[in-house]
Amino acid sequence: MVVVMRGNASETDIEKLIRAVRDAGGDAFVSRGRNQTVIGLAGDVARISELPLHAFPGVDDVLHVNRPYKLVSAEAQPEPSTVMVGETPIGRQGVTLIAGPCAVETAEQTLAACEMARDAGAAILRGGAYKPRTSPYAFQGLGQAGLDILHDTARRIGLPFVTEVITPADVETVAAKADMLQVGARNMQNFQLLKEVGMSGRPVLLKRGLTATIDEWVMAAEYIAHTGNLQIVLVERGIRTYEPMTRNTLDVSAVPVAQSLTHLPVIIDPSHSGGKRDLVLPLVRAGIAVGADGVIVDVHPNPDEALCDGPQALVRDDLDELRLTVSRFAEASGRHVVRAGARTAVHSA
Amino acid sequence: MVVVMRGNASETDIEKLIRAVRDAGGDAFVSRGRNQTVIGLAGDVARISELPLHAFPGVDDVLHVNRPYKLVSAEAQPEPSTVMVGETPIGRQGVTLIAGPCAVETAEQTLAACEMARDAGAAILRGGAYKPRTSPYAFQGLGQAGLDILHDTARRIGLPFVTEVITPADVETVAAKADMLQVGARNMQNFQLLKEVGMSGRPVLLKRGLTATIDEWVMAAEYIAHTGNLQIVLVERGIRTYEPMTRNTLDVSAVPVAQSLTHLPVIIDPSHSGGKRDLVLPLVRAGIAVGADGVIVDVHPNPDEALCDGPQALVRDDLDELRLTVSRFAEASGRHVVRAGARTAVHSA
Amino acid sequence: MVVVMRGNASETDIEKLIRAVRDAGGDAFVSRGRNQTVIGLAGDVARISELPLHAFPGVDDVLHVNRPYKLVSAEAQPEPSTVMVGETPIGRQGVTLIAGPCAVETAEQTLAACEMARDAGAAILRGGAYKPRTSPYAFQGLGQAGLDILHDTARRIGLPFVTEVITPADVETVAAKADMLQVGARNMQNFQLLKEVGMSGRPVLLKRGLTATIDEWVMAAEYIAHTGNLQIVLVERGIRTYEPMTRNTLDVSAVPVAQSLTHLPVIIDPSHSGGKRDLVLPLVRAGIAVGADGVIVDVHPNPDEALCDGPQALVRDDLDELRLTVSRFAEASGRHVVRAGARTAVHSA
Amino acid sequence: MVVVMRGNASETDIEKLIRAVRDAGGDAFVSRGRNQTVIGLAGDVARISELPLHAFPGVDDVLHVNRPYKLVSAEAQPEPSTVMVGETPIGRQGVTLIAGPCAVETAEQTLAACEMARDAGAAILRGGAYKPRTSPYAFQGLGQAGLDILHDTARRIGLPFVTEVITPADVETVAAKADMLQVGARNMQNFQLLKEVGMSGRPVLLKRGLTATIDEWVMAAEYIAHTGNLQIVLVERGIRTYEPMTRNTLDVSAVPVAQSLTHLPVIIDPSHSGGKRDLVLPLVRAGIAVGADGVIVDVHPNPDEALCDGPQALVRDDLDELRLTVSRFAEASGRHVVRAGARTAVHSA
Repeated sequence: MVVVMRGNASETDIEKLIRAVRDAGGDAFVSRGRNQTVIGLAGDVARISELPLHAFPGVDDVLHVNRPYKLVSAEAQPEPSTVMVGETPIGRQGVTLIAGPCAVETAEQTLAACEMARDAGAAILRGGAYKPRTSPYAFQGLGQAGLDILHDTARRIGLPFVTEVITPADVETVAAKADMLQVGARNMQNFQLLKEVGMSGRPVLLKRGLTATIDEWVMAAEYIAHTGNLQIVLVERGIRTYEPMTRNTLDVSAVPVAQSLTHLPVIIDPSHSGGKRDLVLPLVRAGIAVGADGVIVDVHPNPDEALCDGPQALVRDDLDELRLTVSRFAEASGRHVVRAGARTAVHSA
Repeated sequence: MVVVMRGNASETDIEKLIRAVRDAGGDAFVSRGRNQTVIGLAGDVARISELPLHAFPGVDDVLHVNRPYKLVSAEAQPEPSTVMVGETPIGRQGVTLIAGPCAVETAEQTLAACEMARDAGAAILRGGAYKPRTSPYAFQGLGQAGLDILHDTARRIGLPFVTEVITPADVETVAAKADMLQVGARNMQNFQLLKEVGMSGRPVLLKRGLTATIDEWVMAAEYIAHTGNLQIVLVERGIRTYEPMTRNTLDVSAVPVAQSLTHLPVIIDPSHSGGKRDLVLPLVRAGIAVGADGVIVDVHPNPDEALCDGPQALVRDDLDELRLTVSRFAEASGRHVVRAGARTAVHSA
Repeated sequence: MVVVMRGNASETDIEKLIRAVRDAGGDAFVSRGRNQTVIGLAGDVARISELPLHAFPGVDDVLHVNRPYKLVSAEAQPEPSTVMVGETPIGRQGVTLIAGPCAVETAEQTLAACEMARDAGAAILRGGAYKPRTSPYAFQGLGQAGLDILHDTARRIGLPFVTEVITPADVETVAAKADMLQVGARNMQNFQLLKEVGMSGRPVLLKRGLTATIDEWVMAAEYIAHTGNLQIVLVERGIRTYEPMTRNTLDVSAVPVAQSLTHLPVIIDPSHSGGKRDLVLPLVRAGIAVGADGVIVDVHPNPDEALCDGPQALVRDDLDELRLTVSRFAEASGRHVVRAGARTAVHSA
Repeated sequence: MVVVMRGNASETDIEKLIRAVRDAGGDAFVSRGRNQTVIGLAGDVARISELPLHAFPGVDDVLHVNRPYKLVSAEAQPEPSTVMVGETPIGRQGVTLIAGPCAVETAEQTLAACEMARDAGAAILRGGAYKPRTSPYAFQGLGQAGLDILHDTARRIGLPFVTEVITPADVETVAAKADMLQVGARNMQNFQLLKEVGMSGRPVLLKRGLTATIDEWVMAAEYIAHTGNLQIVLVERGIRTYEPMTRNTLDVSAVPVAQSLTHLPVIIDPSHSGGKRDLVLPLVRAGIAVGADGVIVDVHPNPDEALCDGPQALVRDDLDELRLTVSRFAEASGRHVVRAGARTAVHSA
């Protein structure tokens, strides 16, 4: 951190600040310029960050030049992590496809969608049982019954699955069945939920908030890591901007940026960001090309009848192209497509 | 709602859509133009909104021309609501000042801050015991102990108090002591929390999410209302924009817009939006002038030592100006300043 | 400015950077911390800013702690400026109302609108002859003929007027007739236009770009000032955000922030930001309350027939309330309403 | 367009609106619902759009369901355009690389950078002679001298070149030398400049404004097209968002969206959006993968000494990877890399 003092700050102001930093176990290095004095701070950033430095007399500005995360940072672990979901890895060496229905509606629709996902090359299934909905009048998901359908379907198909958990009280129930827990964009700063999913011991898929900075997203991962659980995958799913033609703006730059800040895998969600079926495949291509470690997409056997987010689900006719797209762009990126249960990844043909 | 069909939509497409709307209890009115057909939908918007209209064949776009909220809408109750917090009203006839420390740190600091608040004319106290913090390493609030301090201090001063609740499991505990529950910006779409605070029976202060549209904010209020609790106050606290000089951008236009859409009181939070002490009083003036039904501000007896958000808290020297400012701008707006416990409001001198 | 070096930066890297700064006439002060070295730079910020510091070996980040503007900065002239438009002042001591039609359509409509403006207390008239329009098919303004109508109308009414100029080639023509030149939001970074309006010698009304930071807006003013013309008034007119219910988001915080950074007057435009008639008066109140030095509003004798921006123009029935609003909120702010031609301002009754 | 009437609109209101639309040569189709009446409008959208429909009595909202552009729309010309720059095509069948120095500084640096560009596979050169700079104190480009250097260098290398023109008065001079004119992001709505570059007869590279919607960007192209010049290439170069870690957010979704709305080629600029060298190659990959018709990048022989935007320029060591990247991702997309002067494109090896 760097503290910039006002031009009229006194020596007493400067000494007071240095003393406070040293009391907090840090160190301070003063650089006196012609018009202004700048003080570099060193030591435990997290602890020093708690000092109300902005409120000290004579302080003009406080600049954060170190990142406040520890456990998930690339400094803490220079080697990228691989997160195991059941027997399927997500990590920087391969590209993992996760697919399935947005919401579990019936056992039949879930089975059909998960078979579609498997046929398209998915190595992990996804599906929503507990749905966070902006309207209290909208379909809220099947809850426990949906979770059971997902579990049975995934076991039948032989793939692990990830599903969202939306409130701390449900974590135990969901963790008992699901192979991976998803924290949705709206809950990215639901800190109690972050702690509970961390303590569940399950791997966690953490979506970026609609309007979260990359720093805040990584700090949310740090909350999970702080419970001792480092099995975290970051998901870029589009941010809110002023552009009305797409539901959200997929921030592809966030993928390499987050990969340089942390050792965690970073994947993209092209279904929820674009909000339109026509955009899904182009964004899958862009996501893999920019270096994402995986992709999570919605598929639906009959999107006309979808109770949730039908317009963006891929349909049967898209599956061949999805499989080929993932394979071709993984290859162009010098990576393989991860197969289900393949700890030793196999290169796509 | 209005459905715009593609130029090449067939009669079968149009009929299929109309049938689906009628099956959902709605009605559809077709307007055939030269190049395009437009279908107006009537009936229960919430129910029709659940149809995956975007995914119907031939559909180009779906436009929402009715608001999907019911219980909190101005149509449901044309007369503006007054929300009672203890004996203090918040509503469109007066201007209510809520003040207190951002976080409860010690009993002494809390008492000092609450006395400052009372002296500045506050009719409701505020203070944080459970704090949502972006970093797991930051001060997380005193929790239950802080709640007890707040409760004792408020009873001693003789004013009701509002405090934030950050997770569903804490609602019962907090509601047992606090006069009003606050849902913070990061939890605006924590739907389980919205339901729980609704069911607590306490009045609720609902902050707008950092990046929530006005529609989403009002829908979050509808979640609370859906539990049967209409004692809701909306708080505009600044939205996230690209401007780096202020922490957030106080969206003053949101005040009259939300007041026209709902019957709920709408207040502003100038402390958290500006993020700087110098901006607090100008934003208090702007908020009252634009028509806010109240203002919520941070005060601190010694902001150098604040464990949280010190830079934006008002200090003792600001209190006279705060009291005068509220009084003058309420008067210029043709409103009175609400006194504590004054069901019958008294005009400010 | 502060340069933060990477942890692995060498002494040679540090020396190379210091030498470059000193060659540019600046000075550098090194602060060596445990993990990182921070270098404070002093001297001519504008000149040092041109060094490609980010590209120097070992540099991690470059932080701007001084503002790069000179002539318009509050440091350059601590006393706020008063800009004279004809005989009417705009400055921090009073509140100046500017009003008139969005676009000049006919001599009759212009006269009627300007009479409305005068009756509402306007001390300066506004009207558009050259209109920047997003569509080449939209009404582009009457150009020279519109300018003549405005000029004749203003002289007849006895008030000065401001009008927009949209391209450098028109500056001379417009400056020959108008008392003040307006640079619109879309042209805020049309640097050639900024230079030309500066050299015209006329006072300039500089609107903030739809998505300009406050820093960029003040730098645009510096471009004008750089020609020797310091008669500049800044106009906050709403910024682009994700919120769809208002055309733009009036950033009231920008008023006190810009007033603290510069000595220039800062006014607000509530008509173009809200985009709806119902929002104009609330935003006039908020703007004056937050401390704006004036307000610029659209009025129209018959907005149904307006060729441009009819929905937001105030109509005859609004005028009394406009006059009273300006007067009451100026008074609550301890300021007077500026009267036409009143160098010595008179307090509003 | 669709006009939504208020619940309390009268028959007279409805008739008045219909009459106005018919007077403007359009047609109106009324759909009366239970609570609201919706009126679909047909005919010349551009002309009807000029009616102040929002201001008509009884009107609640006006929804634009047709796009207002004509000449550049995909409806006007379903076959995608190919724009010729000298002998080099830009269009949907290939991927065209444009590269060169951000700014022309000296003849030597320009030659070195352009040779680097050619070696990396560029089929068109780029370079800045007239630079729009936010600060009046920053390097403003060499102007005419820079243009001459660029012209001589490009002729020597044997490739066409594109350069920016920043004000209408310079268009003739620049068009006399350059093979293609660039309109920068800050000038996207400098309508006079759009007209002048259109009338120059040269092909035009039109950058998206920092905060322009896709609709506004395409409307800016329509301004150029309106002069009779359809040789327009759209450039997505990143939009302004709240995220501070990247200079701008490259909106890759805008590429397929703009390609579906218009027949114009759409390319991406990864240098200016990311603002960091490390992001350039990942964004080149993402841009080609999402379907861009080309890429424009900055290269510099010695970025430490760059007078402008050094941190983001690719250096010699990046060139092999740039060439391979373009080639591999074009191939994965089923496209070829466009060679200089190759009207008949040749597949990359």
